[in-house]
Formats: sequence, structure tokens, C-alpha cells
Amino acid sequence: MPRYKLTLEYDGTGFVGWQYQGDGRSVQEALERAVERFCGEQVRVHGAGRTDSGVHALGQCCHLDLVRQAEPAVLREALNAHLRPAPVVVLDADEAPPAFDARRDATMRVYLYRIVNRKTPLALAKDRAWHIARPLDAGAMAEAAHLLEGTHDFTTFRAVKCQADSPVRTLKSLAVSRTGDEIAIRAWARSFLHHQVRAIVGTLVEVGEGRRTPADMGAALAARDRRRSGPTAPACGLYLEAVIYPPAKQPAVSRVTS
Amino acid sequence: MPRYKLTLEYDGTGFVGWQYQGDGRSVQEALERAVERFCGEQVRVHGAGRTDSGVHALGQCCHLDLVRQAEPAVLREALNAHLRPAPVVVLDADEAPPAFDARRDATMRVYLYRIVNRKTPLALAKDRAWHIARPLDAGAMAEAAHLLEGTHDFTTFRAVKCQADSPVRTLKSLAVSRTGDEIAIRAWARSFLHHQVRAIVGTLVEVGEGRRTPADMGAALAARDRRRSGPTAPACGLYLEAVIYPPAKQPAVSRVTS
Repeated sequence: MPRYKLTLEYDGTGFVGWQYQGDGRSVQEALERAVERFCGEQVRVHGAGRTDSGVHALGQCCHLDLVRQAEPAVLREALNAHLRPAPVVVLDADEAPPAFDARRDATMRVYLYRIVNRKTPLALAKDRAWHIARPLDAGAMAEAAHLLEGTHDFTTFRAVKCQADSPVRTLKSLAVSRTGDEIAIRAWARSFLHHQVRAIVGTLVEVGEGRRTPADMGAALAARDRRRSGPTAPACGLYLEAVIYPPAKQPAVSRVTS
Repeated sequence: MPRYKLTLEYDGTGFVGWQYQGDGRSVQEALERAVERFCGEQVRVHGAGRTDSGVHALGQCCHLDLVRQAEPAVLREALNAHLRPAPVVVLDADEAPPAFDARRDATMRVYLYRIVNRKTPLALAKDRAWHIARPLDAGAMAEAAHLLEGTHDFTTFRAVKCQADSPVRTLKSLAVSRTGDEIAIRAWARSFLHHQVRAIVGTLVEVGEGRRTPADMGAALAARDRRRSGPTAPACGLYLEAVIYPPAKQPAVSRVTS
């Protein structure tokens, strides 16, 4: 029974999130129904990251097993046809080794958070970015972000309902860059706590507004106290940009190039 | 009676276009209704460019007269509040000289056309770009585009229903650039014929696909024959990016900075 790895793009706006809820409104279910329409098989699709409602993906990964052997390019095109009109697209399909696990094997996840920082509301980037009207100091935000890089207990930036065993994570990189009105925040880590990126972004915005100093970011982290976090940034600005696997875990059998 | 100049961003997807149709589904009417809600005045708003249904704006300009004297910043914020939830935003408001005319005084209009060139459909850029699955040679497109620059009779790239007196226009610049999957085509001219940019883009895509040579673009232009044009590119990829006025026509009274 061949295993496949899929790379996905989706607009999370109308979904309850990645994860199965039983009511058909999750990305996972949209994909599973497309698989069933394609080959009649009822499968479980396993994602690398459980994105929340409203969170987008530019490069979510998942795996699934099919009885039917399919050329990866055929699988990709068939699923894209059956996914319509849901705003979910299979960017890439590969045959994967039988033990490949999209969640466990990932060595790095990259999240992008988009802020549009201008006085006026958003027309074209509505539901695609967090609009902040007050001027933000991206330099101060970058300085504060730097203090979170490395291995830390991230209890301060963790949702109450987070189910991870340990609050310790290694933030490989947390970069803030500004281009015109737009501020991009990119976070790299093997894994993240629930709401970690959004809690960090909400706190960085308080630094950008001058309501906290960059040094206060370090103090908030060290306090390991959720009350020291800023507000959780809205879901619409968050994108699961990429999931990275070690070369040995890359599917070797065949490869769809785009 | 003060005259105001507004700079607008909008998502053209749900609109019948810029121009008044009497059924409330044009950008112009959305704006006029917001003005009426703000100050009770029934005004006509005059746009610099009559964007078609589905065409977006990053920097459309228009002018209007109000009996009520309003601070430009107050006008901008009030209109943005009254425009909601329509995807139209006033980016900037300025007091303008009494003779300022958004359409006639424009010395340059800049249109951007976005193509996403990849095998798979679009999830996040749906209704925001033209998806083309076949690989495009952006270098050949750039070469062909260069042949259209300058002052020419653009009959080949003009809609049947175009009402302009003359088919002669000066294309100051027509640039094609590729960044990853995305191809951006930017056209600069004082004014354009109806469907000119979309007809040119549709023809450039035929060059990019190798169905025409770049030299054939020049021959099609010289033929002054609409049958020599490629198909009209879809509206969803087109953006009125900026309208430029001479310094003397810039409002001098007050200026809203963003």
C-alpha cells in the first residue's frame, strides 16, 4: 500500500482549521473527501501542523496511504480537480517511504506572520494579514525577537489548552523585516507550542508600539508566566510557509516537478 | 465648495466595475453612498480610470465636491467607516484646487498585471492573478513587450466598444519581470484604450508559450487589425496601480500622510 506525501497551499479563512471536526469544515476533511471522490477510498490524511481556524498554508505537508497505486502527478491533478471549489491546492505529490510520517519526521517548520501597518483598512489584503493602524517600530520588534531565539521554556507564549508535554522549544530563528507598509515575521523551529507564534507576534506588536521595551520581551520569557504575554495575534496573518524533512526522509521513488 | 482628491484601493472581484450602473454594484456608487452617509450630500465622484468588472485598484484616484468643509483626514476616516464592509478603502484624501480633474489632469497611469505561472491552481491568489499552467518564457515576453513601447496606433489591442477618438497612444514603458512563479507586467502611459492592457497581456502570453515570436508582436501592432491580437487576459489579474499628476496639480492646501 503506497504512502504519499502531499504539499498543500490553502486559504484558511472559511475553515475551522486543519483538524477533523466531523462537520466537513476542516481542511483535512476537504482533502479526505477529494481522495474518496478520486478513488473511493476512505483514508486518514496526517498533517505536519494543525493550523487553527483562519490560518493559511503556503507549504503544509501531509501523508496518506492508498490501496490504489497512482502516479504522483496524476494523484496531484486528480485531487486538485476534486478539491474544487475549496480553496485548497495540492502543490506537490510524491511517493514516500512506508515509514514516512509528515508530523514526526519534520525537522523544521517555518511560519510567516504578515502585518500591514498603515492608517487605513485593508481591501486587497483583507483576511490575509493583520492590519495595525498605529505606527510600529520594526527595528525594536527585530531586537526583541532576537531575544527569543534559542532553546527556552516558552510557557509565557503558550495557549492554556496546549497539550505538549514540555514547554521547552528551540526557536532557530525569529526574524522581523519591514518592506513599505508590510512587516513580515518569520519563525523557524522544529516544532511549536499551541498559539506560540501568535502570542509572540502579539507581544512583538506591543514592543513595536512602544508599550514595551525590547528588553521586556526577554523578561517576559524568563518569567514563564502567561500573564506576561501580549494578546494572541489574529489567525488571518499567519501562514504555515514550509515544512522541512531530512534528505533521507525525502521521497526517492518519484518526484513531481512544477 | 471645496474639491477633494481621493486615492483608493479596492478589490474589484464583486463589483461590476468602477462606473455607475444604477444598480449599486459599482465602486463609484459604493463611494457615493458612503459620502451620502457621511454628510447627506448626493455627489458624483469622478474617477481617473474606468476599471472593468473584476479589475482591482491599488491607487485609483478620483475627485468630488462637497458643500461641507471637512478636514481631509476626517473625510478619509469617515468614508472608510461608511464604506464598510465593501472592499473599498480611501488610502489618502487631499483638498484639491477647484479646477482639479482626476481624469483629465492625470499625466500617467500605471497598470500592473499579475500572472501566476505554475502547474497547480491558485488557493491564496484566487481572483488576484491569472493562473497559467503552461510554462511561460518571461524573457521572450519582455522582448516582445519592448516592441510596443513608444507612440503607436494600437488598433490591434483595442476593444470593439472602445470609445476613444484616436487609437494612437504612447506606451511609456511596458516591462515584464519574473520572480519565482509570478510574472508581473507593468504598463505606463498617459492614457490607455479600452482593454488595451488585457489584450496586450493576452498576446504576450502567446509569446511566452512559444505560439508567437517576439517579432510577431511588432507585426501584429503594425497590422492595426484586431484579429491579430491574442485573447483578452482575464480581469482578475489587472490592477490600476497608480495615477500620476503634475506637481502643479497636486493639492497644496493640506496633505494626509499615512
